[in-house]
Amino acid sequence: MRVAIVGATGAVGQELTRLLEERAFPVRSLRLFASERSLGRVQSFRGEGVPLETLPADGDLAADVVFSSAGGTISKEQARRWASHGAVVIDNTSAWRMDPATPLVIPEVNGSAAGAHRGIVANPNCSTIIALMALAPLHRAFGLRRATVATYQAVSGAGAKGIDELTRLTRAALDGRHEEPEAFDHDIAFNLFSHDSEVGPDGYNLEERKLLLESRKILGQPHLKVSATCVRVPVYRAHSEAIHAEFDVPVTPDAAHAVLAAAAGVRIVDDAAANRFPMPRDASGRDEVLVGRIRGDASRDGALALFVAGDQIRKGAALNALQIAEMLVAESLLA
Amino acid sequence: MRVAIVGATGAVGQELTRLLEERAFPVRSLRLFASERSLGRVQSFRGEGVPLETLPADGDLAADVVFSSAGGTISKEQARRWASHGAVVIDNTSAWRMDPATPLVIPEVNGSAAGAHRGIVANPNCSTIIALMALAPLHRAFGLRRATVATYQAVSGAGAKGIDELTRLTRAALDGRHEEPEAFDHDIAFNLFSHDSEVGPDGYNLEERKLLLESRKILGQPHLKVSATCVRVPVYRAHSEAIHAEFDVPVTPDAAHAVLAAAAGVRIVDDAAANRFPMPRDASGRDEVLVGRIRGDASRDGALALFVAGDQIRKGAALNALQIAEMLVAESLLA
Repeated sequence: MRVAIVGATGAVGQELTRLLEERAFPVRSLRLFASERSLGRVQSFRGEGVPLETLPADGDLAADVVFSSAGGTISKEQARRWASHGAVVIDNTSAWRMDPATPLVIPEVNGSAAGAHRGIVANPNCSTIIALMALAPLHRAFGLRRATVATYQAVSGAGAKGIDELTRLTRAALDGRHEEPEAFDHDIAFNLFSHDSEVGPDGYNLEERKLLLESRKILGQPHLKVSATCVRVPVYRAHSEAIHAEFDVPVTPDAAHAVLAAAAGVRIVDDAAANRFPMPRDASGRDEVLVGRIRGDASRDGALALFVAGDQIRKGAALNALQIAEMLVAESLLA
Repeated sequence: MRVAIVGATGAVGQELTRLLEERAFPVRSLRLFASERSLGRVQSFRGEGVPLETLPADGDLAADVVFSSAGGTISKEQARRWASHGAVVIDNTSAWRMDPATPLVIPEVNGSAAGAHRGIVANPNCSTIIALMALAPLHRAFGLRRATVATYQAVSGAGAKGIDELTRLTRAALDGRHEEPEAFDHDIAFNLFSHDSEVGPDGYNLEERKLLLESRKILGQPHLKVSATCVRVPVYRAHSEAIHAEFDVPVTPDAAHAVLAAAAGVRIVDDAAANRFPMPRDASGRDEVLVGRIRGDASRDGALALFVAGDQIRKGAALNALQIAEMLVAESLLA
C-alpha cells in the first residue's frame, strides 16, 4: 500500500507512523504531509528518515490510503480531491463524521459500515470511541436506550500543545509562579474545567454533542439518548468516563461483565479488593479500552454504572484509523 | 464561648482555627487537641500561640462547643463523654452521621434540624454538602427524585498527606522519576482513580454510599435515588461534581437558574460565551459553592444537568461546622 499521512507531525500523526511500523501494515511507500514550517525535517519510519512535505496543489497524494488529522478545514476542502486520485481517505477530523454518505466507523462496533464508503471513511471523536467500546457490546446484548456520561479528558486531546502546557503550568505552580495559559482558556495545573469547545444554545458544548450524535450514527439508533458532561483534567494521556446506562431489558452486573469479558478491544479491570479500576495511567499506550466499576445503577433498577479509560490518541484516534485501513485491506476494499 | 478543636493540626482543624478568627466567632477560650506527637507545639489564633494538648482522660474538655475532626474512632468513643460535660459536639467524622438521634446538618438546607440535638450535631461528608448546596434549593422548588453524580475530588480530602503526596509525586513525574505512593493506593501524579474507600458488595464505595444515605437523611427523603461515581483527581483543593437530576415536575434551565440565583451559599458561574464555569481553582478558599453548566438533561425531558465546585475543606467541612455553631449560638442552643 502507498500510504500518506496528512498532519504527520501532530500527536495523532506521529502515533500513526509508529503504529504502521508496530502493526506491520503493508506499507510500500510512506509520504508525510505537514505545514510549511516542517519543511526540511524528517520523521523516522522503519529506521529511515521520511521527509516532511507540504500538500501538492493538484491533490494527488500518490497514495492508496490517506490518514488525515490535519484539522477539519483541510479535510473538508481537500479530502474529496485526494479520493478522486484513487485514495481512500480515513479522516480523523470532524469534517465528514455526520455526512450521511460517509461511514463513521469503529471496527469492533460497525466495521461492516466501512464497505459502503465513497472514498472517505470518518474516524469518530475520541470520547465517542472510548464510550462505545464498552457500550456497543452491551447495546448488542441488551439494547441501549440512554446513557449519562461524565468525562475526565486528558490534555493531549488538544495535541502536543496541550501536553506542553500541562508541563509548563504545573512546573510554574510548583514553583509558586503563575504563567498564562495559551493552549486552553484556563490554567490546567492542578485544576480542571469544562471542555474548551463551543457551547451551543442548548447549553451543551461541541464535544458533548459529538458524543450524542456520533453514538446515534455508529449504533444506528437515531433515537438514542445521551447526555454528557465533558471535562478537561490535568492528565497527560487517556480519557476516562463515568457512564450510567439504561437498556431495553434489565441488566445485571454479572451479565454485563460476561458480555464485556468477551468483547474485542475491551479489557476488564475491576478488582474491588485491591481498589484497582481503570486509570488513565494504565490505559496510556495500550490498545484496549479498560472497563471497570461494573455495578447496578443504584438509582434505577436494571440499569448499569461503569467507569472506562482509554488511550485517546491510540484507540481514540490513530489505532482506530489504522484498524479501519487494515479492515479495508483484508476485505480488498482498498486499491 | 469556650471552644475546643479535636484534631486541631489536621487540614480541617487548621481551617477551623482560621475561620473562628475570620468570622469573629465569640471565642472566650480556645483549646486545641491533637495527638501526642504535637505536644510542645503551638498553633496561632488571634496573634497568640495556643498550645496543643492531648485529650484528657476524664473527657472534660472544659468547652461549650467541641469541633471534632480527629477521625471516626475517637469521635465514636468519646463524643458522648465530651457532651456529658456540657459541650455540644459538632462532629466532622462519619461516626454519628447516620445515627437516628443525631441531626445531620447543612445550615442552608436543614438548619432547623440542629435544634433537636442531644449533645452531638453531625457535619455531613464534603461531597454530600457540595452536591446538596445546589440540589436542596432545587428540591424545595421542584421535588428531587433522582440524581446521578460523578465527582472530581481533590487530594486534600485525604488531608495534608494527600496534598504532600500530590506535590511529591508530581515533582518526581516531571523529573522522569517514579516514587511510590503512600497516601493513596495509586500514583496521583497526572493520573486519577476511583475513590480510595472500601467497596461494598453492591459495587459502590463508601464515599458513594455516603452521598446516597446522607442526602436522604438531610433532605428527609428516605426514597431518594442517588447513584454516584467518586473519583480522585490531581487537584489540590475543591471538589467538583457533574450532576444529572430528575424532579417531580419538569424543570427548565431558566427556572433552575432563578432558584439557584436566590439560594444562600451558592454562586452561579455560567458564562458560556467566555467558557467560564465552576472550576476547583476558583472555588478554593471561597465560602460559596459554584454552580454552572445549568442545562436541560439532553437524555430526559424536564430533567437537569449541572456542574458544581466547592471548597471541600471550607464549606465541605470547617465552614459548615462553624456555621452550625453560629446557628446554635444565635438560637441560644449552646451553653
